[in-house]
Amino acid sequence: MDMPSVLKCICVVLARLFSAEVLLRMHSVGICGSDVHYWQHGRIGDFVVKDPMVLGHEASGTVVKVGSGVTHLKPGDRVAIEPGVPRETDEFCKTGRYNLSPTIFFCATPPDDGNLCRYYKHSASYCYKLPDNVTFEEGALIEPLSVGIHACKRAGVTLGSKVFVCGAGPIGLVNVIVAKMMGAATVVVTDLSASRLQKAKEVGADFIIQVKNESPQEVASKVESLLGCMPEITVECTGVQACIQAGIYATRSGGTLVLVGLGPEMVTVPIVNAAVREVDIRGIFRYCNTWPVAIALLASKRINVKPLVTHRFPLEKALEAFEATKRGEGVKVMLKCDPTDHNP
Amino acid sequence: MDMPSVLKCICVVLARLFSAEVLLRMHSVGICGSDVHYWQHGRIGDFVVKDPMVLGHEASGTVVKVGSGVTHLKPGDRVAIEPGVPRETDEFCKTGRYNLSPTIFFCATPPDDGNLCRYYKHSASYCYKLPDNVTFEEGALIEPLSVGIHACKRAGVTLGSKVFVCGAGPIGLVNVIVAKMMGAATVVVTDLSASRLQKAKEVGADFIIQVKNESPQEVASKVESLLGCMPEITVECTGVQACIQAGIYATRSGGTLVLVGLGPEMVTVPIVNAAVREVDIRGIFRYCNTWPVAIALLASKRINVKPLVTHRFPLEKALEAFEATKRGEGVKVMLKCDPTDHNP
Amino acid sequence: MDMPSVLKCICVVLARLFSAEVLLRMHSVGICGSDVHYWQHGRIGDFVVKDPMVLGHEASGTVVKVGSGVTHLKPGDRVAIEPGVPRETDEFCKTGRYNLSPTIFFCATPPDDGNLCRYYKHSASYCYKLPDNVTFEEGALIEPLSVGIHACKRAGVTLGSKVFVCGAGPIGLVNVIVAKMMGAATVVVTDLSASRLQKAKEVGADFIIQVKNESPQEVASKVESLLGCMPEITVECTGVQACIQAGIYATRSGGTLVLVGLGPEMVTVPIVNAAVREVDIRGIFRYCNTWPVAIALLASKRINVKPLVTHRFPLEKALEAFEATKRGEGVKVMLKCDPTDHNP
Amino acid sequence: MDMPSVLKCICVVLARLFSAEVLLRMHSVGICGSDVHYWQHGRIGDFVVKDPMVLGHEASGTVVKVGSGVTHLKPGDRVAIEPGVPRETDEFCKTGRYNLSPTIFFCATPPDDGNLCRYYKHSASYCYKLPDNVTFEEGALIEPLSVGIHACKRAGVTLGSKVFVCGAGPIGLVNVIVAKMMGAATVVVTDLSASRLQKAKEVGADFIIQVKNESPQEVASKVESLLGCMPEITVECTGVQACIQAGIYATRSGGTLVLVGLGPEMVTVPIVNAAVREVDIRGIFRYCNTWPVAIALLASKRINVKPLVTHRFPLEKALEAFEATKRGEGVKVMLKCDPTDHNP
Repeated sequence: MDMPSVLKCICVVLARLFSAEVLLRMHSVGICGSDVHYWQHGRIGDFVVKDPMVLGHEASGTVVKVGSGVTHLKPGDRVAIEPGVPRETDEFCKTGRYNLSPTIFFCATPPDDGNLCRYYKHSASYCYKLPDNVTFEEGALIEPLSVGIHACKRAGVTLGSKVFVCGAGPIGLVNVIVAKMMGAATVVVTDLSASRLQKAKEVGADFIIQVKNESPQEVASKVESLLGCMPEITVECTGVQACIQAGIYATRSGGTLVLVGLGPEMVTVPIVNAAVREVDIRGIFRYCNTWPVAIALLASKRINVKPLVTHRFPLEKALEAFEATKRGEGVKVMLKCDPTDHNP
Repeated sequence: MDMPSVLKCICVVLARLFSAEVLLRMHSVGICGSDVHYWQHGRIGDFVVKDPMVLGHEASGTVVKVGSGVTHLKPGDRVAIEPGVPRETDEFCKTGRYNLSPTIFFCATPPDDGNLCRYYKHSASYCYKLPDNVTFEEGALIEPLSVGIHACKRAGVTLGSKVFVCGAGPIGLVNVIVAKMMGAATVVVTDLSASRLQKAKEVGADFIIQVKNESPQEVASKVESLLGCMPEITVECTGVQACIQAGIYATRSGGTLVLVGLGPEMVTVPIVNAAVREVDIRGIFRYCNTWPVAIALLASKRINVKPLVTHRFPLEKALEAFEATKRGEGVKVMLKCDPTDHNP
Repeated sequence: MDMPSVLKCICVVLARLFSAEVLLRMHSVGICGSDVHYWQHGRIGDFVVKDPMVLGHEASGTVVKVGSGVTHLKPGDRVAIEPGVPRETDEFCKTGRYNLSPTIFFCATPPDDGNLCRYYKHSASYCYKLPDNVTFEEGALIEPLSVGIHACKRAGVTLGSKVFVCGAGPIGLVNVIVAKMMGAATVVVTDLSASRLQKAKEVGADFIIQVKNESPQEVASKVESLLGCMPEITVECTGVQACIQAGIYATRSGGTLVLVGLGPEMVTVPIVNAAVREVDIRGIFRYCNTWPVAIALLASKRINVKPLVTHRFPLEKALEAFEATKRGEGVKVMLKCDPTDHNP
Repeated sequence: MDMPSVLKCICVVLARLFSAEVLLRMHSVGICGSDVHYWQHGRIGDFVVKDPMVLGHEASGTVVKVGSGVTHLKPGDRVAIEPGVPRETDEFCKTGRYNLSPTIFFCATPPDDGNLCRYYKHSASYCYKLPDNVTFEEGALIEPLSVGIHACKRAGVTLGSKVFVCGAGPIGLVNVIVAKMMGAATVVVTDLSASRLQKAKEVGADFIIQVKNESPQEVASKVESLLGCMPEITVECTGVQACIQAGIYATRSGGTLVLVGLGPEMVTVPIVNAAVREVDIRGIFRYCNTWPVAIALLASKRINVKPLVTHRFPLEKALEAFEATKRGEGVKVMLKCDPTDHNP
């Protein structure tokens, strides 16, 4: 075998090496609270940033190159990126719950790099083609939307459900939107902040309760009286102990409390109250199987997330963008990574 | 024991006899295709009218008297009536599928009388209080709506579903409405009639296909090409053999075909195609547990069924009303049973 | 109407009053821990004995009379009695979860009388005919067996499950038996008592762990190392806080912890650990839809509960029987209520 | 870069190429009816053998080499081989139904080679380590066992189920075994052959019915009368039209008919009977997520499949083995591929 043949062989082999990946020119990347947290504190729980790490995991871009084994994408395709990619096909993957796979790769969770950059390489199977009528920014927003989709699916929201969403921050709002889309009849939202509750109203909440210093039982009682009955489903988005307690007291017998917000490792809960009324307590870890759902909804114009984007910065002004996010300005800040295209 | 005491005792006893029932002053009763069928043909399948039978099972009214054991209703309450009431608490009732109970009472299915009359007595447990903002006619329309709710629940319609509804008659339309409310991303409807398909568009169908003489496989292929993928769910509302076949070919592997329309007892189907792609075939029998869902949706103004009522007749002109229905005029004909109140 | 006619009418009416009930000659009634508790302490949680109350709810007997509306039973039928009978056909009943109905009648839960007596009247729908090859005592033992059936069903035990049962008291043992019957591959049981663990071995536990002063994490670790993997399912039968904690740590991601044992109203749990691993926490309240299952299993000789009965007393020696139960003698004490038949 | 470096680089690259695979020394491979069919007829339905193809897909062996990315296996590990390996991580894989993935690789389904050979390379993720107390032949038998596990799971067999298995061939027998393991109370089996029915009895069937020329309704009626009630579940293992019809008539309202046997593409069925009684009709395609279940059961000695192996041939006598299988001798014929070890 002569040298050129050897090199050609190497090239072929190397090309196949990345056979299941695509190279993307990044377009829009949203900033998430966790990005700010890693930037400021260098850790979230057991996840510690030990080496420099690229941030960003709410993202979309354009395919510029595809691995030899990729059949469903081609250069030029616009895609939304699901940031979690299982490294092994273990039992969790095989049973459809790949988000629980312990060795999963996840953008911007240390030590894995995120995609807030110009070019980024990702598993093709976790890049989803965007239809022409869905923008890059809508594609990037699928990530936060996915938290709501996974939570409401785990909650079993269905036609006619009465739902109590505890907390009107971004995740609370997303859950209100998704619960209504899944057919919930009425949604009541609690929060400390009147302005957050106002947002909840705007995205579809039927009732709001501004909590002051009520006991968990009192909150539960207010929820019931507004809905006219106890909700079958509570989506807890704060992680606060008193809210988890309120969630248990509030939920109808036989219903479900979904824990989305994360707070202290240990909490004290009225476990007998939940147990003897068969109120299930279920957590969520990120999401799985949500991108196709979200794209179908965005494509059919059943959901409008465009107003959520309130700020845009070019990638080179990332620091400003992070400062703005840290100050809590607007709803969603987008970084525009493609110098030739700053459109939504 | 003297006579008055005896009589008092009898009264008490008699009152308790009906302890679980309510007496209703009927307000609005919709005419269903099956009512017309019994009127014209005296039978549907094995159900034969042998004695005079009161028709009507899409109904609402006002409570005028309650049995001694009734706690959730009182005179003056406006209620919607679920027409099926199990006679025995058998295994089907205990497991939440009371519609399958073989000895169920059902309004206007021989030999059971319906409620197209001035006063009517019904099990209180199957009368559901209407909120002030839900009209009697909306209450009566819960019955046809329930067919769609039960079908879409059995189909597993959920957020982002692509749904193929076969047939754009009243039941097809109801399924389009309900599927969209449950979060379906896109719904495609087929029918022979352009005008029916137009209605389907109006109530929310994303795509329509006017079928002429395509083979079942060709219909399936058109459905896939319009949706951009095979639908996970097909709701078959015609009962026609070719449509059932198209439903099997059209449904995505792992999906569900729900049979709502009833046609000939025996049909020839591509069973291997369904089996090896794990396409489940599920029928429905009426409905169960749909009234509370429908009332919650009507009360929260998530659904507007009012436009469906196109004709109204006072009870004394019932014959005219049935003639109009038989001629296929309008969408839904309502009979007004309360001479003092002909409002919706 | 003359007097005799009036009286006849009254009789007819009265007879129909009890049309859905049967009168039973009681045969065998097991003594449960709760019976002893009410006897000794007069209350369990919010349930307080204010008036004299008949005890007993693990029972079987013979039909001596049937109400006019009873079709599935006749005098002479031997039956097992499900002690909980919903008073209203509410949403819980209609959806197949009648055990959660708030107004349910339940034998020997104050203020409702139990069936430890000679003759007893019960809803016919909740009396289940025993096949000839199932004894009265087996019939009475369906009640404790039902707790295990309901718990294992709620847990989702299925073919190949690895199960951790926490606590080897009577309820723990029943769960071991039922989990194995449902196809569990391996069951590991923990308890403080070596003798209880020995019983667990006898009824089918694959592994036992005698807990001393290990931390919850250490218990979880021992469970994993014995099973060779984390169990998908944990059935907690003690109600002790440290055990609930161990149950959370021990259960595999995506699995289920079922709370059967009841302890203090408030407990402190590692909620984040459960939530981010999507370990569902589900309680149980008694049971529903278990009698037909248990009778089918007993009739087919798939399960042998006869050895559980270690003591028998005639009804007139009830006090002795309760004293023996209180002293913790044997496994199950049976009271024989039929003076003419003390057979099992 | 000098030549040796280049070559080293190539080697590294090539090694990574197969990073997710293992090389196996084959030990035991069972002969399946489909192997014989391909050998004799060169096709099954749309699957046509166009090029020489290695047969065999019921197999186990020993790892001799692992790819660089393989962490859960090492040389020397004894493994059972799941023959279906999805080629792409598509929606079916992500949702836990990888058997439906349209591009799946499957041993000995043309054009994919099987593993009836000395050495064989397979995806490590689909090789499952056998515990020391499970033999190679038990490992190979997991494949036919998996058909029963998948069918009974799709059927929803659970504690106390009454099950009707139609057909007492190998797949029928496997379903009897699995249904009983999942807690079925009673299983009734039908077949034309008395000797096959005798086998069904031996593996656990409670009742058998030798069918002669009964109508489908008559068969259904016999099933009901033997069980004392209609079965909730029917597992149809013949594919014969009359049997599918009998399966529909026989199954209790609200129950499930699972189609395992495959016959003619089109069959005529009493669809209205199934639909209005909400009898679900569900097919199966091979299996998914069954190997871990089967290994757990084999390791815990809950199931004994060893007696199924009635014939053994060394690989070099494969032709004899196939001839014997074709003649229908015994139950399962095993080919021993390791010349140094012919043990079970």
